[in-house]
Amino acid sequence: MNIGILTIGNELLTGTIQDINSSYIARQIKIQGWKISSMLSVGDSEEAIRDALAFLLARSNAVVATGGLGPTADDITTEAIARTFRLPLYTDEEVLKEIRSRFERFRFEWTPNNAKQAMFPEGARTIFNPYGTAWGFALEWEGRLITVIPGVPAEVRMIFPEGVIPLLKELCGTSDHVLTRTIRLFGISESKIDQAVSGIDLDLPGIGIGFYPRFPENQLVISSCNVSLEQAELNLRTAEERITAALSKYIYGYDENTIEKTVAALLTEKGLTLAVAESLTGGLITDRLTDVPGSSLFLDRGIVAYSNRCKTDLLGVPEDVLRSHGAVSAETAVLMAEGVRKLGGTDFGLATTGIAGPSGGSAEKPVGTVFAALAGGGEPVCRRFAFRWDRRRIKEVTAHWSLEMLRRRLTGDE
Amino acid sequence: MNIGILTIGNELLTGTIQDINSSYIARQIKIQGWKISSMLSVGDSEEAIRDALAFLLARSNAVVATGGLGPTADDITTEAIARTFRLPLYTDEEVLKEIRSRFERFRFEWTPNNAKQAMFPEGARTIFNPYGTAWGFALEWEGRLITVIPGVPAEVRMIFPEGVIPLLKELCGTSDHVLTRTIRLFGISESKIDQAVSGIDLDLPGIGIGFYPRFPENQLVISSCNVSLEQAELNLRTAEERITAALSKYIYGYDENTIEKTVAALLTEKGLTLAVAESLTGGLITDRLTDVPGSSLFLDRGIVAYSNRCKTDLLGVPEDVLRSHGAVSAETAVLMAEGVRKLGGTDFGLATTGIAGPSGGSAEKPVGTVFAALAGGGEPVCRRFAFRWDRRRIKEVTAHWSLEMLRRRLTGDE
Repeated sequence: MNIGILTIGNELLTGTIQDINSSYIARQIKIQGWKISSMLSVGDSEEAIRDALAFLLARSNAVVATGGLGPTADDITTEAIARTFRLPLYTDEEVLKEIRSRFERFRFEWTPNNAKQAMFPEGARTIFNPYGTAWGFALEWEGRLITVIPGVPAEVRMIFPEGVIPLLKELCGTSDHVLTRTIRLFGISESKIDQAVSGIDLDLPGIGIGFYPRFPENQLVISSCNVSLEQAELNLRTAEERITAALSKYIYGYDENTIEKTVAALLTEKGLTLAVAESLTGGLITDRLTDVPGSSLFLDRGIVAYSNRCKTDLLGVPEDVLRSHGAVSAETAVLMAEGVRKLGGTDFGLATTGIAGPSGGSAEKPVGTVFAALAGGGEPVCRRFAFRWDRRRIKEVTAHWSLEMLRRRLTGDE
Repeated sequence: MNIGILTIGNELLTGTIQDINSSYIARQIKIQGWKISSMLSVGDSEEAIRDALAFLLARSNAVVATGGLGPTADDITTEAIARTFRLPLYTDEEVLKEIRSRFERFRFEWTPNNAKQAMFPEGARTIFNPYGTAWGFALEWEGRLITVIPGVPAEVRMIFPEGVIPLLKELCGTSDHVLTRTIRLFGISESKIDQAVSGIDLDLPGIGIGFYPRFPENQLVISSCNVSLEQAELNLRTAEERITAALSKYIYGYDENTIEKTVAALLTEKGLTLAVAESLTGGLITDRLTDVPGSSLFLDRGIVAYSNRCKTDLLGVPEDVLRSHGAVSAETAVLMAEGVRKLGGTDFGLATTGIAGPSGGSAEKPVGTVFAALAGGGEPVCRRFAFRWDRRRIKEVTAHWSLEMLRRRLTGDE
């Protein structure tokens, strides 16, 4: 099965918005074992949308389109598609009711242009949007399927797997069983993973391996496709075991388990608690941990110790340590971790300090010098890093490393 | 002048690589005052490249293509284009010499497949690559221009401005001036902005308005295009003034000034300091503030007060307030803001508390109930919100609102 991707929006053609929907959709489609014929981006113009559909439909069994479904005047996708296929528009009363009730629930003021979002081409099936007021729709045309969903990336990630994939599956009939498994790796470079994987025998029927760098981690996605579900499962398991054997040191989780979810699950399961003292990361570690529902069970507190005074009066780092070793030092990092652990009365304390740049570096400690420390559950540990990325990436990789240090201690993998 | 963008590579269609070249090229083209007709991504297939060129050339004065110029077997762009226009390939001896000498300089081993990179379609002009061994080329066909450069993003950023823009300028002669201005709005819905803007006279020559939702804010981008730079500037200023007059209450910044940059600049400029106590937002406010270089000048500390004990012992919220009003209450929020301000000895204190969900809600205080409080610079203020998004979005919109409350106090716009 060949699928074309169409992204619609003037903002794409001016470069104001980076199109991240196409690559997301492409990955989802690949996992299902289908192919992309091509990906096309056009502006909010009826002619452009019509031409794009013709181009893609000539080369594909289905077209997945995003964007231009909002209430404003420049959102013309529905109308353009209706005209392309010479279909009249109708108002779906159920959808209209749902949109109106959403406005009431959120206490948004209703404006008449919102009614446009309940209009669809005759014969279209609507695609539910649990997130926003722009619903999608699907049309069949000469044995081909056209699906249209809103272009907001967060909504695409909600609607595509639930609302579009099942329709594509319907189109291609009883398909093979396709299973996937994502292996999450951290602390190893792309080329080393590539080298390791190329040495593994993965020549199993229907097995495919995708590689996805996701700063600061890397992901390997194994897909297993087979007419027999048992065989697909068996091959997937075999491939996973072989990859795990070769790379176990760097694997911290599988599928949807981010590093923060992994650490949160370990702490909750063992009934252990954590306090965090962040200088360099500025709250990013606790921000990520508190994205996990139920994080109040293990997270007692975080201290964003940006000033030296805060490091001294709250965390108990002696002034002479700050003077002699500096705020960016292994000594300070360990004292911060121990200090916050004591302050919170928790099992573990994590701490970060460093120079995020762009200024503030020296010859001895250039921008990118980072210390991450862990106290509790044994001797304190501290790692020193010399990162070469920008300010945001230095914060992100440091937050990840800190959580990884805790994960390794919790699993005994140090 | 209309330009089509073509990106070539199997890795784009599997989603392994995010295409960042198209949006980069689009921005460069927009700055020159030209338009993008559409952007197309296809795999390394002769048929796909031929069809893509036909599609784009039918709608454009020029096509800018990237990718598929390397030495390996799957790099077939040059050959595919030569065949499309029925041109024989020739070896450019100068380029071959240059590539060979580069191999010697870097002590890379020469392999015969590299000679492929010195082959071009008859009649093509070569485009120098100061970075790598894959040169680009430009072809004219029926008054249209086709340029092809390598797809490595770092090389595109080197070669496109120096090697391609001058060729496009040759083709279209002198261009218009294009200026843009981004207006950042918060606390107003997309449809209300649309309504407000539709009531403003923006019928000025060369003025265009784009609308971009960027949760939790919205952005309006004014573009002004004119042969006279003065006229373009004047029209842009007029449009900006009219929009600002209608929406000033919701405008917190312009162009690249995010809410954290805006607040950071105001605090730094006035020499004022801040401490933050975050329960619901879990460190997200200080994470965003510390993304701004120099944030240590105004940010003293943050307390992620996830446990009640932390709210009591560090922030001084009395236990009976937590008992009688609850941790999620206006009373607690204000005491947290005052407590962290006192603890840090700062000019301002910000605090958040709420129920991020998915569980923990009650009839009186459902999931999404949030209080944000500000202390310092006058009477404390507290806002209560009832948000309906997911956990992450509730954190994001609350962080934005907290910073907005501080911005309004700093600018006297409360």
